[in-house]
Amino acid sequence: MFRRFLPTEFNFFDLFERMGVLAVEAAACLRKIAEDGGVDENALSRMRQIEHKADDTTHAVIEQLNKTFITPFDREDIHRLASEMDDIIDMMTTITNRLRVYQISEANPMLVSFAKLIEESVHAVLCAVRGMRERKHARSVSDFCVEVNRLENVGDEMRDSALAELFRREKDPIAVIKWKDIYQDAETVLDICEDVAHVIDTILVKQA
Amino acid sequence: MFRRFLPTEFNFFDLFERMGVLAVEAAACLRKIAEDGGVDENALSRMRQIEHKADDTTHAVIEQLNKTFITPFDREDIHRLASEMDDIIDMMTTITNRLRVYQISEANPMLVSFAKLIEESVHAVLCAVRGMRERKHARSVSDFCVEVNRLENVGDEMRDSALAELFRREKDPIAVIKWKDIYQDAETVLDICEDVAHVIDTILVKQA
Amino acid sequence: MFRRFLPTEFNFFDLFERMGVLAVEAAACLRKIAEDGGVDENALSRMRQIEHKADDTTHAVIEQLNKTFITPFDREDIHRLASEMDDIIDMMTTITNRLRVYQISEANPMLVSFAKLIEESVHAVLCAVRGMRERKHARSVSDFCVEVNRLENVGDEMRDSALAELFRREKDPIAVIKWKDIYQDAETVLDICEDVAHVIDTILVKQA
Repeated sequence: MFRRFLPTEFNFFDLFERMGVLAVEAAACLRKIAEDGGVDENALSRMRQIEHKADDTTHAVIEQLNKTFITPFDREDIHRLASEMDDIIDMMTTITNRLRVYQISEANPMLVSFAKLIEESVHAVLCAVRGMRERKHARSVSDFCVEVNRLENVGDEMRDSALAELFRREKDPIAVIKWKDIYQDAETVLDICEDVAHVIDTILVKQA
Repeated sequence: MFRRFLPTEFNFFDLFERMGVLAVEAAACLRKIAEDGGVDENALSRMRQIEHKADDTTHAVIEQLNKTFITPFDREDIHRLASEMDDIIDMMTTITNRLRVYQISEANPMLVSFAKLIEESVHAVLCAVRGMRERKHARSVSDFCVEVNRLENVGDEMRDSALAELFRREKDPIAVIKWKDIYQDAETVLDICEDVAHVIDTILVKQA
Repeated sequence: MFRRFLPTEFNFFDLFERMGVLAVEAAACLRKIAEDGGVDENALSRMRQIEHKADDTTHAVIEQLNKTFITPFDREDIHRLASEMDDIIDMMTTITNRLRVYQISEANPMLVSFAKLIEESVHAVLCAVRGMRERKHARSVSDFCVEVNRLENVGDEMRDSALAELFRREKDPIAVIKWKDIYQDAETVLDICEDVAHVIDTILVKQA
């Protein structure tokens, strides 16, 4: 099925870079949704399209893994990297879907801030996987991983202040229920980016 | 402890089939609870009994695994299959318990629909593990796994429309809190069935 | 970084015991917070300090693991034991943080009961890891693991009755949202202690 849009020749690095590019596209889409203050049919179909491409790419990694004897690094690490990069995108689809199901129809500045932070984090993830192609880039890959970890800490604080503000100001319990879930999901995207950075770090250590 | 109700001679396929049968019994029990609109002492004790039997069967798989040199497929896959089948049943116990703790006392047509979908899914899981005994059934096992995946997608849509309806109609925030949890738990049962189907698929691929 | 407070000579058992001691300290801190009915700056900074020490100790285990050829038990089990002991402490930090973000400012007897139960459980975990140093203590280690499992069951019942009471008595939906999360987090600490006991059990079985 992934053959529809994947070139017949590819290697693991191409596939990981593709996942990174898709994550960046998903984050841009999420930011637009946050700024527009709701999910229209266009945005929803765009996000689902990205998710399908990411699923196909993940399957391509696994299929490639089954056919390949020599891999650039541990088979298990390749598997984890692909599936956790897929999780980043899935979590952004989950947020999009939640905004729709919860019938959110106003822009929320805090969600816009989260979306921008997510954009920064997935961009750093993309740079890290791009750098993995060559051992001489190990140091810069490591720097991108440090940046992803830093952004996760920023995200933790952002979620805490978003929740504190929500419980302080919002008097409508239904709105509290909705936004609590959305803020937590947003922070979870950054957690998963950190997991990806951790897998990349592990790979670097083994190759050092 | 599991010796109380397990025959002294058994093999892995018997144990997996037993888990499948227990999952089908738990799903029937859950549907009855949903239709009755609440958990009475009988239903609760029936569900707990099924859960204990499932725990014992899972322990039997692990004990058997420790004593057996040659296994029909990867030891790790056997372990995962047993523990994820156990998770299916645990999640149904969680729902039962939640209905009781949340003092739900009216029938909810949406929960009945979920319970019926869960019944279909665990039935397909049972058929899949039954078919694993013989390699010539590989194709039908695979079909049952496809069916479990299909039902998970149906479950996703069911949860989304259940939640959308809940946020649109329900004005009592406490009722929103309760039913949101219950619908999400119900969908999680289908997620775990999909995980089981995925393990079975992996086993089939390795044996092909 | 962990060199700041770790002796230069240490072994895995020392590190696990250190994690156990930190878990006991975190539990005492959590109980004090629960009794005081809120998180002040002192308590918050104390809990974060413990969390940092636990992180450093976990990293020390992993670094030691990378440098050591012969380990007292499976490398993977050492890794899991360290990371799950770290999770115990992380979960207590999560609760502390949640109490602060949710602006809880009254003592809650149920939370005090949970904190006492957590203290008992982490104390049993500490005794279990202490006993792992010598094979002749295997039986008492096993007894401590049984105790951790028992306390997890007590915790399940405590959470159920806390939630049932909450839904029965509390009319403010925002308070329901807050305490539901807190009780569930508290029970999760006991779940993670049970996971740790399970890892220890696995190690004992392999060494028998």
